[in-house]
Amino acid sequence: MGIILNSENLKGFVKPQDVDALSSRIKKAHDELESGTGAGNDYTGWLKLPSFIDDQFLDELVSFGKEVRSFSDCLISIGIGGSYLGIRSTIDFLRQEARIPVYYAGHNMSVDNLAGLLEEVKDKNISVVVISKSGTTTEPALAFRVIKKFMEEKYRDDELKKRIICVTDKEKGALRKIADQNGYRSFIIPDDVGGRFSVLTPVGLVPLAIAGIDIKALVEGARVGEKEYGCMDLEKNIAYQYAANRFCLFNQGKVIEVMASFYDNLFYVHEWWKQLFGESEGKNGKGIFPASLILSTDLHSMGQLLQDGVRNLFETFIEIEEQKNRIIIPEDEQDLDKFNCVAGKDLDFVNKQAYKATAAAHVEGGVPNMTITIGKGDAFHLGQLYYFFEKAVAVSGYLLGVNPFDQPGVEAYKKKMFELIGK
Amino acid sequence: MGIILNSENLKGFVKPQDVDALSSRIKKAHDELESGTGAGNDYTGWLKLPSFIDDQFLDELVSFGKEVRSFSDCLISIGIGGSYLGIRSTIDFLRQEARIPVYYAGHNMSVDNLAGLLEEVKDKNISVVVISKSGTTTEPALAFRVIKKFMEEKYRDDELKKRIICVTDKEKGALRKIADQNGYRSFIIPDDVGGRFSVLTPVGLVPLAIAGIDIKALVEGARVGEKEYGCMDLEKNIAYQYAANRFCLFNQGKVIEVMASFYDNLFYVHEWWKQLFGESEGKNGKGIFPASLILSTDLHSMGQLLQDGVRNLFETFIEIEEQKNRIIIPEDEQDLDKFNCVAGKDLDFVNKQAYKATAAAHVEGGVPNMTITIGKGDAFHLGQLYYFFEKAVAVSGYLLGVNPFDQPGVEAYKKKMFELIGK
Repeated sequence: MGIILNSENLKGFVKPQDVDALSSRIKKAHDELESGTGAGNDYTGWLKLPSFIDDQFLDELVSFGKEVRSFSDCLISIGIGGSYLGIRSTIDFLRQEARIPVYYAGHNMSVDNLAGLLEEVKDKNISVVVISKSGTTTEPALAFRVIKKFMEEKYRDDELKKRIICVTDKEKGALRKIADQNGYRSFIIPDDVGGRFSVLTPVGLVPLAIAGIDIKALVEGARVGEKEYGCMDLEKNIAYQYAANRFCLFNQGKVIEVMASFYDNLFYVHEWWKQLFGESEGKNGKGIFPASLILSTDLHSMGQLLQDGVRNLFETFIEIEEQKNRIIIPEDEQDLDKFNCVAGKDLDFVNKQAYKATAAAHVEGGVPNMTITIGKGDAFHLGQLYYFFEKAVAVSGYLLGVNPFDQPGVEAYKKKMFELIGK
Repeated sequence: MGIILNSENLKGFVKPQDVDALSSRIKKAHDELESGTGAGNDYTGWLKLPSFIDDQFLDELVSFGKEVRSFSDCLISIGIGGSYLGIRSTIDFLRQEARIPVYYAGHNMSVDNLAGLLEEVKDKNISVVVISKSGTTTEPALAFRVIKKFMEEKYRDDELKKRIICVTDKEKGALRKIADQNGYRSFIIPDDVGGRFSVLTPVGLVPLAIAGIDIKALVEGARVGEKEYGCMDLEKNIAYQYAANRFCLFNQGKVIEVMASFYDNLFYVHEWWKQLFGESEGKNGKGIFPASLILSTDLHSMGQLLQDGVRNLFETFIEIEEQKNRIIIPEDEQDLDKFNCVAGKDLDFVNKQAYKATAAAHVEGGVPNMTITIGKGDAFHLGQLYYFFEKAVAVSGYLLGVNPFDQPGVEAYKKKMFELIGK
């Protein structure tokens, strides 16, 4: 069934004519994207990436992943930002599909975290993927120093060449040199795709292939997305509708977007989305603050504020039509909790009623909301969803008047940190 | 060293006289809390709870926990909201201290999540704690139906009496009846402590004792908190300073508070804090939106927006002085990544420079921030931190003119859901 956008619960907040009024600006954004004449046009390689990816390359990656798995009990994936979130969101979303456990490093500098990881894997057969365009980003570079030493103490040189895999620039940078000098296998990060858009480049595909995720289905879904959300017609293109709705809401003072899902395996998809939107839009004093809730968990923590707090927010639900499992709610003779009304029903039935009830209660409480429904929680639909959001944020950035492909503000803390550590 | 609040990076945003001007209102809030004459005074049992807890009761709980562990490989903790977050935040924060793994259920209705849990534990020796004041909250009630049946298929009656433990009302409600009729061991949730303030009642203490967490140290820390943050003097009471600073910032249009930490084991502490503040303040169209970041991870996703986005937010860092582990950064002969400048240093040194750099960069970028520093990541300091936030939010709610102890808005989605499922 693909992906559906339901905007009914924007009624009273976003009028159809408000969205229509944006159509010429959206056409302009669309044209600038397609023609590569907009801001940040050096970084629009993601736009045609799904159709550009060679099927033979995918087959080779699948074989490569299988080969690495054959001598690995687990994978350590070293990376941060775009070299972390797309991988983790995919693996967590498809949590029953990964064939070996994937551990993450280099996404923070917590010693307790890294020490715990090394303790956990020390007796296992390990492979490592290190992902960094430059090789000099502090967090992954330091983690790689520690893990490289750990691997060198554990394995001989010929084993290291099999077990350490670099995803980096084609010719420049520290990690490229390290890979070439040590004879590690390596893959190339293209120059024209920024970190947060890179899940379908080797940044995502290499570790995902090693984990055993169906990367061909992931790319196939993105190809459907490229086609569907490449269409200029605002009435048909739900990525553009989503961008237009958000723009209208932001202009009404809805400064926070809460991504809310009733499925906890979407947690890292939300985190990926937060980077994509936060980093693309949050500049020049502009941009919606992206927040994430996993429900119904967070209805019992943040639900009160959503229902009755400051009316400066809107909500986007991600619904998943079909679940992998079924859990039938047991009948209880005494029915003390009074839930025999749903005995014999699948727990997901109640979960879906909770979603419907929440969407209705929140809009009544003054929180407009949209729902993105995906047919299944599989790699194909996730690939399409990734592309949906990528396309939406590009157009959204242009509507907002910012360059959605740069991130100059990320340098500020780095500069100060380098001074403090004497780099 | 306890807990320190550093407000230097509010300079230029919150003036000392702004805080001083609040002192009479804070005194009023303090007096109303202490005398039990403020809004929601039926639910201020948490205020004197740490000193009220009997040491003998704690000893009994510790023994009880030990006994349950003696026949359990793992614990399933069933609960939502306040019956979930305090437990999980404590266990995750002290992640190397839990002696058996704790799994969580009843905090959502994802079938894939619950099915995965049952699959994972099916061959283990299991005990279950179910926590619910009424026993009729949908999520834990349905999870308990499913898990009770699963346990009944796995164990005989006398085993069930040992392995199912209820934490519920002293006399009323469905779960009290289920416990009494089945002969399950049970513990009492006091009437005068709301869910989000309940981590130091049996709600938190029973599962924590079973997990093997040092609940006596946790309570001891809270006792120090009760004493330190019971003092009326605004110059000495950092809980009141924190509340006052937030109030001033909110009145300047800082509508989002980002809790930010460089230690990933604080993730669920942030979630607990989000409930405490979101649910206590988010009502009558008021309240700061609480958000959470784990750094430096999220500097590479949300960092751009924090540095350069809409200036409607402020930040509160939690720093931990002393880490459990040390990881020395290895020297590298070639130094391609140019990090030999920190070779021989502990990774935590760099992490702490990243914190300093971030706090400085963000305030320069227009994001005022405070830092709460705790001496160690242990149970004692966590107990004190819990009390610090509880006291702060109570005063904050009174300053804001809301009842910080109710949550009427949580009912809205439930009502609609009950209609949809025919309850």
